[in-house]
Order: sequence, then C-alpha cells, then structure tokens
Amino acid sequence: MKEFVLGIDVGGTSAKFGLVNIIGDVFHEGVVPTTGTTNVNEVLKPIHDAISKVLSQNSDYRLVAAGIGAPNGNYYTGTIEHAPNLGWGDFVDFTQEFKKYFDVPSILTNDANAAAIGEKVFGGAKDMNDFIVFTLGTGLGSGIMVNGKIVYGYSGFAGELGHVTVNPKGRFCACGRRGCLETYVSATGIKRTVYKLLADYTEDSVLRRVSYDDLNAKMITEAASNNDFIAIKAFEYTGKILGIKLADTVVHTSPQAIFLFGGLVNAGKYLFEPAVKYMEKTMFKAFRGTVKLLPSSLMDKNAAVLGAAALAWDEIDK
Amino acid sequence: MKEFVLGIDVGGTSAKFGLVNIIGDVFHEGVVPTTGTTNVNEVLKPIHDAISKVLSQNSDYRLVAAGIGAPNGNYYTGTIEHAPNLGWGDFVDFTQEFKKYFDVPSILTNDANAAAIGEKVFGGAKDMNDFIVFTLGTGLGSGIMVNGKIVYGYSGFAGELGHVTVNPKGRFCACGRRGCLETYVSATGIKRTVYKLLADYTEDSVLRRVSYDDLNAKMITEAASNNDFIAIKAFEYTGKILGIKLADTVVHTSPQAIFLFGGLVNAGKYLFEPAVKYMEKTMFKAFRGTVKLLPSSLMDKNAAVLGAAALAWDEIDK
Repeated sequence: MKEFVLGIDVGGTSAKFGLVNIIGDVFHEGVVPTTGTTNVNEVLKPIHDAISKVLSQNSDYRLVAAGIGAPNGNYYTGTIEHAPNLGWGDFVDFTQEFKKYFDVPSILTNDANAAAIGEKVFGGAKDMNDFIVFTLGTGLGSGIMVNGKIVYGYSGFAGELGHVTVNPKGRFCACGRRGCLETYVSATGIKRTVYKLLADYTEDSVLRRVSYDDLNAKMITEAASNNDFIAIKAFEYTGKILGIKLADTVVHTSPQAIFLFGGLVNAGKYLFEPAVKYMEKTMFKAFRGTVKLLPSSLMDKNAAVLGAAALAWDEIDK
Repeated sequence: MKEFVLGIDVGGTSAKFGLVNIIGDVFHEGVVPTTGTTNVNEVLKPIHDAISKVLSQNSDYRLVAAGIGAPNGNYYTGTIEHAPNLGWGDFVDFTQEFKKYFDVPSILTNDANAAAIGEKVFGGAKDMNDFIVFTLGTGLGSGIMVNGKIVYGYSGFAGELGHVTVNPKGRFCACGRRGCLETYVSATGIKRTVYKLLADYTEDSVLRRVSYDDLNAKMITEAASNNDFIAIKAFEYTGKILGIKLADTVVHTSPQAIFLFGGLVNAGKYLFEPAVKYMEKTMFKAFRGTVKLLPSSLMDKNAAVLGAAALAWDEIDK
C-alpha cells in the first residue's frame, strides 16, 4: 500500500489540494475556486469527488489523514473564524464538516502556518528554528516559528501579521478596520497602490489599459520588469511599507530569516531592494544585519499544500 | 547549609540585587545606582562588597549561582549590547566581568525576560504559557513567553518592544531612532508627555512647580489620583499609545495576558482604562476579548530580581 495524506490549502481565491507522501512528493494536485462560494461544502464536495476518483482508480493508495491550511484557521479547534477573504460566515467548523466527506483524521492550521511548516520540512528553513513566512496572496498571511515550533498562542490565531496597523486612517480592510498591512502588502494591496499611482502621476503605463478587476499581480510584475514607471513605483511603495513593518516584527521574535511567498515575489529586486533597505533603516540597532529577507524556496512547488500535509504527517507521528 | 542564588536586576537608574532561595524568598536586598556610571565594574564591585559581607557573616550560607536581568541582555552570550540607557559602551561582556568578582556560574538575560520568568514562577502567570510582561521604567522592556518558554529568537534579543515605532517622525530615542514606543510609554515617556501637555494647555497643575529633572512617575501618579488635569491627560495619552501598539503585538504571539510592571502601574484606572479601550478598539477581530491587561502581581516584590534568580535556579536544574 502507498500511504498518502491529503493536503489542502484554502485561499481567498481558490483551494489547492494534493496527495502527499511522507517524503513530500505531491500527486494528483487539483484546484477549486473559493471566490464567490458562500458555504464550505461548495469546496469540500469537489475535493471529495476528485480524491474519491483517484482512490477508486488506484487500489494500492491509502489515505491516512488530512492537513488543512486556511486563513484564520485555528489549530486548537479546527475552525476558521472571522476570515475576511472567505464568504463562509464568521465561524466555520471545518474539521467537523470535513468528517462528512472523509473518514480520516484531519488537522487544520492557518494557511501561512502551513506554509511555514512546509518551508521548515521541505524548503529553505530546514536548518532554522526561528523564522517567519509571509504569504502574499489575496491577503497577507504569516506563520511564525520560534524554537522550531509554530507559535499558536493562547487563542490559536497567533501570527496574523496581515492585520498590524500601517496607518489608522489608511485603506479600508475586509476585516472592518483601516490601514492593515495586507491592504498595502499583498496581491490586492499592490493593485490598490497601482490605482492610486495611476491617479497621482501622469506618466503613461501599460497598466492604464487594464481595469481594476482584470489587473493582477503578475501583470504588475511583468510591467516592472519591462521598466514600467508606475509598476516599479508600486513595488517600491509596497517594499517600503513591508520593510518598515518587518522592523517592528523583528523586535518581537528575532527571526533568522523572513521568507516571502506568492506571485509578488517574482518581482525580485523591485520588491526585495526597498523592503531590505527600509527594514534595515528602521530596525533597532541590536537586530541590524541579523535577519535575512528571502524568497520562499518552495515557490515552484506548493508550499502551503506541502505544509498542510507535513502538519498531518507530524500529527500521525504523535 | 542554606543555598542561595544571587539575583541582579540591572536598570537604567539602578541595579537591584538580593539572595534568593529556591522557594523565592529574597534576603539581603540592596541597590546600587547605575545612572552616571561608565563602566560595569562600578556596579559589580559594590554588589560584590555587599554580598561578600553577608556571606562572611553567615557561615551557613552558600552562594551557588547568579542570575542577571539587564537591558539588551543576550541570554546566548552573556553580553549586554547597545543598551541605550546604560553608559557602559556598546558591548559589555557581563558574565565574563562577573567572574572577576564571584566564583559561581552566572546566567544573564534581558531584564524584562527575567521579570517574565519571575511572573511565571512566583507571580500571576503561574498557570499561563503564553503571556507578555512589559516593564515600564527608565525605558520600556518586554519579555515574551510562548509555550511556557521565553522567546529569545535567533539573535538572543527577541522581545525588544520598547523599540517598535509609534511615529517615525516622533520623539528622539536614546537608541538613535525616532518615535520608539518607550519614548512615550515608560517613566521617562510620561515625563516627556507631561512637559508637552504643560506647553499645550493653560490649566494649572502641581506639575508646573516641578523641573523636568526633578519630575518622576510617582509625582505624576499622585497628581492623577488628586484629579490633576495634566496628569490625567498624560496617563490617557500614554495608555492610548500603549493600547494601540498592544493590538499590533497581540497579532504576533496571541498572549493570554499582558502584565504591566513598574511605578506607572500604580496609577491604576488612569493607565489601564485607556490602554484596554484602545487595545480592544484597534485589535483584529479574532483576538478581541481574548487578552487580559493586568498589573504584575509582583509589584510589591522585586519581579526582576526574583526572575533573574529563577533563571539561575532553572539553569542549575539542567
């Protein structure tokens, strides 16, 4: 028998999933949209359909557990609570709902915590005990590792760095507050910045030909690498805000490295140079030069699916 | 034989010390000033003189170790680095210097980490695994506990929350930056606030009769409890800034409680009410109502001396 765990990465746009063996090979990957869904079953059902088909076609496969990474996922309770980018209500008992579809134990954590576990088990943080992963997607997620373990905290929700405040009078956030970091630093955040810059400046830009709804981070990254003035400015602004807030984060847990994950990271120097510059400039003396800012080494793979799976393998081990 | 460890709490104004037995009784406490000292030996010598005298007078006493809490103290290396409120230079090898005076092993940590260990071992956090202690003295120190252990981080300096940025164009900080939290929230911070308010407002205040150098947190606390307009405003402002920044801190490690330690805490509601109000108001939904803001339960005792001693007892145990 070949044993697998089901790794599921729930995001504001889609849920990715795959069967993962104990050495981190991913098989039968799939994606289902989450945008526009109003109930968790709209996502669990198609995942169940796809995986059931795989299992029925491969009689030597055995599903032993599932690991789920989800925004505002609570490791202690298996619930998703107050996730601003999911339309499933304020309180979703994910692992309970999961039982209706699959007869294996499931374990849930924040999607960015899952990415951090993936980075530790299969990625660039193999030899690190203190690091942070930022996932820059629809929102900004973060997973904080201290002494080789994810920080869950008393509530189970620790590491919600998308919601530190950049500016209390700043951009409206889906969470109901204003000026949260993710309204600036995320795929959505940089779109908002591009639109602000298109309003402020008169320079032409390929981005002037794209509607807000059509615009995505990939287009902005491509425009930057083609020397588009607005796109480069947008990355500078995004990197600056990220760098300044990273300096505040560093005084909390003093990580060895901060990994960035997500499409924005492909912009390379356009994002990293201002981020490193402002992080170092803003940082308290004792930490200067101690923190590496790195792209996730799982960019081509699916760090969050791998991480969710690693979490599940780890639980089985206990 | 009665076994003791020497606990030393180094602060920007003075170093407190005492002999502590394994159940946390403190004997032969003493204080030496640190203000104006330019070398660590100016503090170690008088401590050595005092403790040697005690030991020579009590032949049944045995000193087995020492624990030291110091601003910017590095647990990994035993050094004090870049401490803005100490005039001993950028790099002080404290545990090495300590060996010149005492023939027992010594272990050093950040003074606020020591206070957090004290709160866990002897204080209000006995049953907590995730909490933070803020020490409000000359500066603002903090000790973060996650899963029952102090967070040291990669550098050993984790938990320097006095140096998160409130306002990048704000007050000058001894660390060379501007707008650090401790320039607002500390005994020195509230003095600065009082002076600003005395400039802004026309109301009379007992504090108008005190020079900046003479003014201390105790006077401001007393004035507030006598309904002094300026003093109450100063606490409101201090509490508001603290509360807003606590909301950012909470999303990092999600503590069960945040303990405040130091003379300012005696102001009670004048400090806690605005702090709780703005913490809850600013906080990301998922954390609202999950975090208690409490006075340290070691206020009458010396939390940092006890904590430093607890750290030493703990090391002996290993």
